[in-house]
Amino acid sequence: MSLESIKVQLKNLGLELPEVPKPLAAYIPAKRGGNLIFVSGQLPLKNEELLGEGSVPNEVLPEHAKDCAKQCFLNGVAAALSLLNAGEELELLQVQGFVQSELTFHNQPAIVDGASELAIAIFGESGKHSRAAVGVKSLPKNAPVEIALVFAVK
Amino acid sequence: MSLESIKVQLKNLGLELPEVPKPLAAYIPAKRGGNLIFVSGQLPLKNEELLGEGSVPNEVLPEHAKDCAKQCFLNGVAAALSLLNAGEELELLQVQGFVQSELTFHNQPAIVDGASELAIAIFGESGKHSRAAVGVKSLPKNAPVEIALVFAVK
Amino acid sequence: MSLESIKVQLKNLGLELPEVPKPLAAYIPAKRGGNLIFVSGQLPLKNEELLGEGSVPNEVLPEHAKDCAKQCFLNGVAAALSLLNAGEELELLQVQGFVQSELTFHNQPAIVDGASELAIAIFGESGKHSRAAVGVKSLPKNAPVEIALVFAVK
Repeated sequence: MSLESIKVQLKNLGLELPEVPKPLAAYIPAKRGGNLIFVSGQLPLKNEELLGEGSVPNEVLPEHAKDCAKQCFLNGVAAALSLLNAGEELELLQVQGFVQSELTFHNQPAIVDGASELAIAIFGESGKHSRAAVGVKSLPKNAPVEIALVFAVK
Repeated sequence: MSLESIKVQLKNLGLELPEVPKPLAAYIPAKRGGNLIFVSGQLPLKNEELLGEGSVPNEVLPEHAKDCAKQCFLNGVAAALSLLNAGEELELLQVQGFVQSELTFHNQPAIVDGASELAIAIFGESGKHSRAAVGVKSLPKNAPVEIALVFAVK
Repeated sequence: MSLESIKVQLKNLGLELPEVPKPLAAYIPAKRGGNLIFVSGQLPLKNEELLGEGSVPNEVLPEHAKDCAKQCFLNGVAAALSLLNAGEELELLQVQGFVQSELTFHNQPAIVDGASELAIAIFGESGKHSRAAVGVKSLPKNAPVEIALVFAVK
């Protein structure tokens, strides 16, 4: 899907393309190798503020963590688009979702769906993707979710 | 390795190609981009039932967790094969193994070997792969292991 | 960056290319598919000894864990170079950093910077990379850090 179509879709969904998120350290938001774009693990930052902090479900409710995953994905799309040339299209290949989880929380898929559902809503068929979702002990800045992406460029 | 050869190898090993596992949420079992196939994180589901539940080694014994990793790999092969066209061959590039671990358990490699050994048994030389194995706090459905794969298509 | 240039850079930095690290189990140090090289998750092993053991920051201090990440990266470069042919060049695409973390430790990026800063020091522009850094509960051999890499070959 082209930059123009993605912008139209975002507008239809009432969403805005965020600024490309600043890395927290010595890396870049996304790197392109040939026709693949690897997007760095994104946190649920909006205007440089975290949308939530802590583990799921006690410190961050699942519904809220799902919204956080949505924001991670939006940030990742912005990062990927910054490497797309005119006339090229993005296709989503992989979503990796890391959820800061309590020991007894086993519904990581429902959280990462925040990213996956937005992927389909924005990209349609080319937003369908493979996915891994796991529950981790701790994340940077105490974020509840971190999401990394791989796109193909066509 | 071609679909036919893989089926022969599985038969030799007394294994059957499972149905492509149903995703737990808004994603697909595997996605192809050019000559790469990214397979979603697979759980040790057999006929839609988990082969084990809980963390290693207290709730799930290491030997049993290793069997679970084998089942994850088998499910992943089924997912990859569903995207392979006639005359094409699969080559395994990467295995990512997430093991639900107790704090004091540090032998994730022995668990993920369930997947790696089966990869070599089925695919031979083209089953040799790079690998990462880590111990995570929690996994979807309280599975002891989750395994994601990347294949190349030739 | 070519093998020769990488060796020159390492010498300038006072570093030596280690032996390709032996895998802990049934996999190989790195696998090439077309022009991609997937490097297995590397531990901070030097001459087959771990540079540190335990979780960050209580058992392994952050500065020391950062040094461990540097060693992981160096091992990963050795693994990648073993698959590079004469006249080819490596470009770093992705770093995945898993840090064995205490619950209250949220500065994984500062640890994985040990790898990222070395990447830039060695590879310059072609060492810029996407990255994910997460805090996990347990790692093989009780290592404080594990780092997996993806390179493109040019």
